[in-house]
Amino acid sequence: MPDINTVNRPDEWKIEQGLSGAVLPVLDMTGPETKALAPQTFGPLTKDEDAIKSVGDRDALFKAERKGWKGFVEWENHPDKKAAAHKILTSQTFPPNPEYQLGPIPATNPVLPGTHWKMWHHAVGGELTQIPEDSWDTVLREKHPDMLHLLQFPYNGEPPKRLVTDKVITPNSLHFVRNHGGIPMIDKEDYSFTLDGLVQNPRSFTLDDLMDESKFPRMEKTVTMQCSGTRRIEQITKYAGQGDEVPQAPWAEGAIGTANYVGVSLKKVVKACGGLIDGAKHLEFDGADTYFKDDEVMNYLVSVPWSKVKANEVLLAWEMNGETLPRIHGYPLRIVVLGYIGARSVKWLYRVKAIREPSRAPVQSKEYLYFPQQVGKHNLKMTDGIQIQEMPVSSAITSPWTKQVVIHNGRIRCKGWAYSGGGRWPERVELSTDGGFNWYTIPLESLSRKRKWTWRTWEFDLPCDVEGWIEIVCRCRDNALNTQPPDVRTAWNWGLHVTS
Amino acid sequence: MPDINTVNRPDEWKIEQGLSGAVLPVLDMTGPETKALAPQTFGPLTKDEDAIKSVGDRDALFKAERKGWKGFVEWENHPDKKAAAHKILTSQTFPPNPEYQLGPIPATNPVLPGTHWKMWHHAVGGELTQIPEDSWDTVLREKHPDMLHLLQFPYNGEPPKRLVTDKVITPNSLHFVRNHGGIPMIDKEDYSFTLDGLVQNPRSFTLDDLMDESKFPRMEKTVTMQCSGTRRIEQITKYAGQGDEVPQAPWAEGAIGTANYVGVSLKKVVKACGGLIDGAKHLEFDGADTYFKDDEVMNYLVSVPWSKVKANEVLLAWEMNGETLPRIHGYPLRIVVLGYIGARSVKWLYRVKAIREPSRAPVQSKEYLYFPQQVGKHNLKMTDGIQIQEMPVSSAITSPWTKQVVIHNGRIRCKGWAYSGGGRWPERVELSTDGGFNWYTIPLESLSRKRKWTWRTWEFDLPCDVEGWIEIVCRCRDNALNTQPPDVRTAWNWGLHVTS
Repeated sequence: MPDINTVNRPDEWKIEQGLSGAVLPVLDMTGPETKALAPQTFGPLTKDEDAIKSVGDRDALFKAERKGWKGFVEWENHPDKKAAAHKILTSQTFPPNPEYQLGPIPATNPVLPGTHWKMWHHAVGGELTQIPEDSWDTVLREKHPDMLHLLQFPYNGEPPKRLVTDKVITPNSLHFVRNHGGIPMIDKEDYSFTLDGLVQNPRSFTLDDLMDESKFPRMEKTVTMQCSGTRRIEQITKYAGQGDEVPQAPWAEGAIGTANYVGVSLKKVVKACGGLIDGAKHLEFDGADTYFKDDEVMNYLVSVPWSKVKANEVLLAWEMNGETLPRIHGYPLRIVVLGYIGARSVKWLYRVKAIREPSRAPVQSKEYLYFPQQVGKHNLKMTDGIQIQEMPVSSAITSPWTKQVVIHNGRIRCKGWAYSGGGRWPERVELSTDGGFNWYTIPLESLSRKRKWTWRTWEFDLPCDVEGWIEIVCRCRDNALNTQPPDVRTAWNWGLHVTS
Repeated sequence: MPDINTVNRPDEWKIEQGLSGAVLPVLDMTGPETKALAPQTFGPLTKDEDAIKSVGDRDALFKAERKGWKGFVEWENHPDKKAAAHKILTSQTFPPNPEYQLGPIPATNPVLPGTHWKMWHHAVGGELTQIPEDSWDTVLREKHPDMLHLLQFPYNGEPPKRLVTDKVITPNSLHFVRNHGGIPMIDKEDYSFTLDGLVQNPRSFTLDDLMDESKFPRMEKTVTMQCSGTRRIEQITKYAGQGDEVPQAPWAEGAIGTANYVGVSLKKVVKACGGLIDGAKHLEFDGADTYFKDDEVMNYLVSVPWSKVKANEVLLAWEMNGETLPRIHGYPLRIVVLGYIGARSVKWLYRVKAIREPSRAPVQSKEYLYFPQQVGKHNLKMTDGIQIQEMPVSSAITSPWTKQVVIHNGRIRCKGWAYSGGGRWPERVELSTDGGFNWYTIPLESLSRKRKWTWRTWEFDLPCDVEGWIEIVCRCRDNALNTQPPDVRTAWNWGLHVTS
């Protein structure tokens, strides 16, 4: 073979056909000439030991805050601690996020290890040192062995498809988990949280205070919780996002679960503080988990409007499906916001703060945003996004699976769920074998019972008169008669949220 | 030309191509052989004068009920009157509904005269005799001369497209009207309504009672009202219904309007009666208009759940956009249900009744139902339908129009509205020139202001780089991120409701 001068790569055909998107250069067409930006490369990890040492003793800086609260650092009232952690993080480099979205998804379980998150925790040290290991031990202790671990740390996991709709009430060990940080280990006896900010009489509450039925009526609610990233995998495989820490969780149909929670209404607790003052309109919830946003360290913070709390739709819960709240789900006390995305239901609550405007914390104002088609990570303005609170109506098929071969006699047994956010409920679920031209209505007796804040699971023998490839799709109409767009593309947004 | 034996009709090619659907026989394939059912034919109108005479003096039977209430007959508490009217109606025949849906739509204004409705009124006589004429006089007096009169009687009319979104608040003379019967002429001085059924202390209220601010706090709300048949014309022209009195109103984009209403919350009035008793869960509203359901006569009755009333979302209104409520909109007092379809906002209210179950009256339980694809008028079960209360998210383009030729320099000026029922609001409106593959977001400053119970109107210069036929479509995401199905077929139901 003569020595021909070529720029072909060995796997040229695969690259040209889009089967190795991750190695393609980014094309910048904003100028008169197209520039091919080479994929970002990362040199060896660096570490400025002197700079880090100058910050001081990490065990003293980030020591245990309270007796019985292991793995908790209070960042929000401590700019000094935040600055120290920032200095430590910026004095060294960490491995990048794996941009697997444009390449193959790892075939492991856990799918992604979360290496850089673990390293961040170890780098800051002190109370955070042991968290990655403690959290994973908690997963193994509290969750079902068949869970699909999408991200090992912070833990993100969902049940396998065959177990998602197996029961109308999801067993605790199979309920999906979307953690944004590690799991703090808090003793019930030493637990309390503070309610302050713009309230008449700020004060703290222990669990015993809340459980005193002479002061707070007990509240029990069966609630479906859904992550706004549910079924993101369908977008990843068809129209990927643009590589970011957000789509680290390649959720499928299992990022939804239903449980019975027991606790008290937050409204009553606010009233016990004499009510809101000075134009307070929102309540911020502070979680004891530590959240890393690039090189900034903070607690997990979000907010909901007072109108939601006032309607008795925000619960302080200590019990889940008749059991003590599992550690991985927020023990000893978590928020449960009825009909909102799971991200608002803060776990390991240590503070509630009445404020005037929605929280400016990044989880509220920079993440869980729904962007238009024109917006990506290269031209992002945060105010272009809609803050995702309620989820739209959606439904999913849990059996049969994509590309599965089915032998049938004119009927295909199908299973799945349907859900609508904001307290709306599925009124009708329909299935089609022709991609959505003709629709069969699932009889009401084949749907689980209608309840204001929950999904409905279903099973149906779908008539089908063809061999060969068919496209089974489902759709739901909720009680406001909203329904779903028919294909994944219509929902595309670079954060890959809200796949309905 | 030799005499060839042919079964061809003169306009055979037009019939075969579906351009004259109305003359096609119905094919009944439920048996082993296909039967071609000839289109229904109607003989000459018949009338059994003796039978009608035997009913008695119509002027005495159906006389004025109350001083100052012209054109009002109270049917609901009078089975004797209902039976007399039924006897009169079944002792003669009336012309059928024009089944124009499968044929050409009349090019007149009014589009449809409502001949059989007028004849029904004249046949019953008494207080109903003058109603068709009085109602049309009211239309001419109160509505804008440019209104599109879809049905002359009962009056159904909408503003022309160019005026629908001309103002964010729709002027009274241009607000759409969907009446189900004639307009009773009620004097304000003689007006009162009764609140009874399952309440502690049933009683009547005059307008002066309600306007007494020491008893009832004044309530003012800007509200968008929408008919569930909005944009039915798109279904009629593409996938018609099955011929019925329901689709008599071939609504376009104008069956929606926004007005400022002043009145009191119905909740406070129920409280003034000592509250609900004995498991009452719904409130039925009785309108003074007479409604004909085939050969049965009744008042216009619907109901809403108590939970809706309790949330202060049901108004008793006497003022519309700073003016006394027009007669055609329910003078002197009407119900306004925030975020529900217009059909629940009863006009000319004469009674509110607390009941245990939703009203069994036909408007509530047999109409305004949303059926699945398998259900038509030939195999109908009422319980297959969902009672339409809240409308789903929707949006419409009011300019340019379908098949209009546009000369442009890369941008097409577009106008329209967006709305979502149940108190949700449009968060984002998008336009596409390619039928919905690429979407442009309308900047927030080009949308009218966000308000809980109202639509948002919009104007946008849409980028467009092609000549030739283009398909401009719009979609809306509301605050629960619900959006719209992309084509008319996905919404098909035989009553042609809920075209979103």
